[in-house]
Amino acid sequence: MLRIAVLGCGRIGQMHAANVARHPRATLATVYDIHQPSADRVAQDQGVKAATTAEEIFASDQIDAVLIATATPTHADYIEMAIASGKAALCEKPIDLNLGRVEACAAKIAGTSVPIQLGFNRRYDPGHSAVRAAMAAGDIGDLHQVIITSRDPAIPPRAYLEEAGGLFRDMTIHDFDLARFMLDEEPTEVFAIGGALIDPALGAELNEVDSAMFILRTASGKQCHINNSRTAVYGYDQRVELMGSAGMIISDNRKPHELRRYSAKTVEASEPYQLFFLERYLEAFMAEIDGFVDCVEKGATPLASFEDGRRALILAEAAYISMREGRMVKVSEVQA
Amino acid sequence: MLRIAVLGCGRIGQMHAANVARHPRATLATVYDIHQPSADRVAQDQGVKAATTAEEIFASDQIDAVLIATATPTHADYIEMAIASGKAALCEKPIDLNLGRVEACAAKIAGTSVPIQLGFNRRYDPGHSAVRAAMAAGDIGDLHQVIITSRDPAIPPRAYLEEAGGLFRDMTIHDFDLARFMLDEEPTEVFAIGGALIDPALGAELNEVDSAMFILRTASGKQCHINNSRTAVYGYDQRVELMGSAGMIISDNRKPHELRRYSAKTVEASEPYQLFFLERYLEAFMAEIDGFVDCVEKGATPLASFEDGRRALILAEAAYISMREGRMVKVSEVQA
Amino acid sequence: MLRIAVLGCGRIGQMHAANVARHPRATLATVYDIHQPSADRVAQDQGVKAATTAEEIFASDQIDAVLIATATPTHADYIEMAIASGKAALCEKPIDLNLGRVEACAAKIAGTSVPIQLGFNRRYDPGHSAVRAAMAAGDIGDLHQVIITSRDPAIPPRAYLEEAGGLFRDMTIHDFDLARFMLDEEPTEVFAIGGALIDPALGAELNEVDSAMFILRTASGKQCHINNSRTAVYGYDQRVELMGSAGMIISDNRKPHELRRYSAKTVEASEPYQLFFLERYLEAFMAEIDGFVDCVEKGATPLASFEDGRRALILAEAAYISMREGRMVKVSEVQA
Amino acid sequence: MLRIAVLGCGRIGQMHAANVARHPRATLATVYDIHQPSADRVAQDQGVKAATTAEEIFASDQIDAVLIATATPTHADYIEMAIASGKAALCEKPIDLNLGRVEACAAKIAGTSVPIQLGFNRRYDPGHSAVRAAMAAGDIGDLHQVIITSRDPAIPPRAYLEEAGGLFRDMTIHDFDLARFMLDEEPTEVFAIGGALIDPALGAELNEVDSAMFILRTASGKQCHINNSRTAVYGYDQRVELMGSAGMIISDNRKPHELRRYSAKTVEASEPYQLFFLERYLEAFMAEIDGFVDCVEKGATPLASFEDGRRALILAEAAYISMREGRMVKVSEVQA
Repeated sequence: MLRIAVLGCGRIGQMHAANVARHPRATLATVYDIHQPSADRVAQDQGVKAATTAEEIFASDQIDAVLIATATPTHADYIEMAIASGKAALCEKPIDLNLGRVEACAAKIAGTSVPIQLGFNRRYDPGHSAVRAAMAAGDIGDLHQVIITSRDPAIPPRAYLEEAGGLFRDMTIHDFDLARFMLDEEPTEVFAIGGALIDPALGAELNEVDSAMFILRTASGKQCHINNSRTAVYGYDQRVELMGSAGMIISDNRKPHELRRYSAKTVEASEPYQLFFLERYLEAFMAEIDGFVDCVEKGATPLASFEDGRRALILAEAAYISMREGRMVKVSEVQA
Repeated sequence: MLRIAVLGCGRIGQMHAANVARHPRATLATVYDIHQPSADRVAQDQGVKAATTAEEIFASDQIDAVLIATATPTHADYIEMAIASGKAALCEKPIDLNLGRVEACAAKIAGTSVPIQLGFNRRYDPGHSAVRAAMAAGDIGDLHQVIITSRDPAIPPRAYLEEAGGLFRDMTIHDFDLARFMLDEEPTEVFAIGGALIDPALGAELNEVDSAMFILRTASGKQCHINNSRTAVYGYDQRVELMGSAGMIISDNRKPHELRRYSAKTVEASEPYQLFFLERYLEAFMAEIDGFVDCVEKGATPLASFEDGRRALILAEAAYISMREGRMVKVSEVQA
Repeated sequence: MLRIAVLGCGRIGQMHAANVARHPRATLATVYDIHQPSADRVAQDQGVKAATTAEEIFASDQIDAVLIATATPTHADYIEMAIASGKAALCEKPIDLNLGRVEACAAKIAGTSVPIQLGFNRRYDPGHSAVRAAMAAGDIGDLHQVIITSRDPAIPPRAYLEEAGGLFRDMTIHDFDLARFMLDEEPTEVFAIGGALIDPALGAELNEVDSAMFILRTASGKQCHINNSRTAVYGYDQRVELMGSAGMIISDNRKPHELRRYSAKTVEASEPYQLFFLERYLEAFMAEIDGFVDCVEKGATPLASFEDGRRALILAEAAYISMREGRMVKVSEVQA
Repeated sequence: MLRIAVLGCGRIGQMHAANVARHPRATLATVYDIHQPSADRVAQDQGVKAATTAEEIFASDQIDAVLIATATPTHADYIEMAIASGKAALCEKPIDLNLGRVEACAAKIAGTSVPIQLGFNRRYDPGHSAVRAAMAAGDIGDLHQVIITSRDPAIPPRAYLEEAGGLFRDMTIHDFDLARFMLDEEPTEVFAIGGALIDPALGAELNEVDSAMFILRTASGKQCHINNSRTAVYGYDQRVELMGSAGMIISDNRKPHELRRYSAKTVEASEPYQLFFLERYLEAFMAEIDGFVDCVEKGATPLASFEDGRRALILAEAAYISMREGRMVKVSEVQA
């Protein structure tokens, strides 16, 4: 059993703590949050004792690994502390909103053999990973086009948006990673547009966008489109489509159950899609821990690595340049 | 070009006249209706001259074939007159509501080489016939179970119901025929229940049912379920499911187009199914004429024969005995 | 936290033990199996100590409730022992294969206030229960017809079939219960046919059937069809359809994920349905424990009661009479 | 009855001739083709007499309107001749491959009251037009994003590609028009990439692309993505998705029938999509003639006008600039 401490007891940290606690190959060693009452509440729910500092976690020899789900600005620090203390780290995305900080962290941990896994949950989703496996098995021949639809059910509160680092670094970063995962080749060019269509005040006051579209291209010419919206009223919309020379394969939306209604007005109607990532990607979050245990115990390579986190952020930076300048931007133009 | 006269200018006769008129291998020779103004109107619409009697049609050497879409009590007479005059006949179902009359007609036309085709349109439907072809090709291995769902969109007016001969002879007759077509073997036993669930007055005043369920079995043990309702508010519901040792195959409902709606209340919702048989089975009605031309011009065997009409009626009679007596009835018990 | 002991460590007992162990409101107190090594293995997997006799479980004051997943012939005994010791019982179906034994058990526990819940997992399934809730809310108007499709993915081994008590008591019993749950009114009449279509030797040697069809009717005339097969090669097929005066509602099959394939031969193709009940009804099994905890801790009425188990068995008995005699059988004809 | 002459007896001309011939409100007056035997064959099939020159058609007082389905370089000439002779014209897309020629034609026919309709069949498709109507009715609130997937089933022969004027003018032109139709506002900016992924020789030898992606934006900020491929092996792929503040609406692919297969390998599998535009858009082509008759006889405004043809071509030109220069191009930059 891998003894994991969860750092951060916000919404996603609570979920991770519960998932670790009920995971057949892991135990929840302790939890920590900068806001002690939050940590205490989660600790009580899961029947463990909360830590009072992060440092005591890194110092403990009763803990094998850490799951970092704290505020983004602390991620890189905690990764460095984990590596320094020889504890495997599973870190929520993004590594940092600042590419320079990410590069510095990369330099600091270079050469470590301690496992680091990034929280790109989509790579662990049963549907998305089945699609990738089918593509890798040659089921659609040569891959030509990837279409990623990624829309959140409701726009987050203004306070969140002010801290989130911008749509591309906060939300699209998952899709940039998914694009890399599916393309099976590095995108070398990025084009992006964005707008504040849902809440025009976002644009005027925060210079933020809530709706966006992207085109990526790889060196060999593979094409990828991503579209984002902060408000899909019909539920969390998460689709991936791979088009190739011998066929197409889609990972479609998942419903809470398979009810269909038929009335005088409409037929084959289902309930809205699963609310948000905690519901939609529950299996993925569990599989993520599976994978993490495999990395630590069996020396497996993480499906989502630190380097994947770095490269997704570079794509986000390229996309920001593109949006500003209205042109295709080479990924190689991005500088930390 | 096969020169076809259409007898009967009611709703279904009008459709047949239009279909014949625009069929690439047939021409509409004339139309007839006992109510002359109806015939005249259809004739004018289609640019032909209406006949004033049925007799002149059977006597004409400018007419190769007749399509009988008159009131049910005239069907057997017109079939006999067609055969006597050497004209091929495509007759709407049922042949007659009285099995004795059907048997007498069968005796009278026995041995004729003039083609007779019955209007069992479902056999000509692209989806249903593709399902049967897949089954016949062995795609689902040995056939074990057939499920037929057949529900009309709205209960007909009382006047229609008083003349229609009862749900089993009027509506289920299509499903009995479809069961025979799909089972690829004669049903030897029938069980039926029925009720006036939509309009209880139907039961009290007409001894009629509006909702029914059936189980049929063949000599080799194949099982078939049929369910009927006179009122599917979500549209005409026409499904066929074949279950076998190596798989299942379904002919599902057809929509007018592939619109899907996604809202805060519902996802993947489509418009109600196609209104009724004129819309749902339009392609089948056209294919029916195709088949009829092939029978006359190429000597093809009708996909739906007089004998098919007779056997479907026998199943309806067996079902009525079953409903009265609350037991499985052998088809061989039915007597004209 | 409700302290639950699991009796029986076969396939379904193992699943229940794991589900109890990770349930947020329950703890796994101990496990028991007549075959001690089986109990020890499950105990070790879940980090508990196995009991060596059932008696010590009923005698323990550290245990609040039992989950009975032992061989069918022991169910009624253990229910009686549970009630006698004041421990709530969640018992797998069927209560017993012999109606007389069930009636005797009912008499013995009559008047108890100790909660007893039956393992009719389908009542707890998110899709099925959403469908029932929609019906109960009046979304489809008056209910007229219920269609239940229930097919297992593969025929069980001969040894299992020899002990299982016959298809109707072993497998259809779930569907009889589901029919009662959905009809919201007692079926008063039953008609059944069965055949050994998959494995004819079953019929010849065990007098057993592997494919069956049923029609049930309630006093008010509601109609219900059930079909069963032991071998749906495309996966576990579990569908419920409710047809009413104002619409239809379906609980359709659940897939492992929403992958769709598109090739030169086929489009919109998904992976086979979830393997079998452990996968398909996982959420239902978890919800079953939720409901059980509510019964014990909050005094809630079980969604599936002992009486539901008794009535489902009576329907199975009526169906056997019907299959033998080829007629509609009144449920009131069944005698213990 | 509107008397229509069809010019051009290639594949699409043959279809138009047959559609006009069986249209209830139109008659096929004659057909013409520069290759006389082609015209004669179609004339014979439809029971009319072929014209020997286009001029005799424009001179005839027995002809009300022309349907222009000849080679693209003749379209503008025939439109001008039709207008000069007072005959309504329904012209296949594109008007011309050269924007200068289109502008000249526009100048020449400016102010005419003779109806001119463009052959943008997608506007007449039942699914696509139902989606647009729902959007226009406010069913999805404010429109934010449009996604158009448009893929042909198989790459055309090299000879066709050498004459077709390039993917954007030949194929995407339909999607540019559909984007304008759905956005309900002019796109003001275009971004495009393309590649020869299916057949690299196309790129090397013809400077042609076979796979492409586009992003369009309107003045108010609405976003639109189009993707194209010349080879969707699973059939003609034609989807439109509209995403808005209150929901989403999709016009999905149409199948030849609703067969679904279930086997040990796959479930819910259907036959490949309808082959190509003649099958997929048959209803649209018929509705196009409906609309044309309405324009001529009732003075209705064409749903697809000459101006729509001109604007779609301008978008194609903008897209070519974008592809060359790797930047967002303002539509206003395009010059004839």
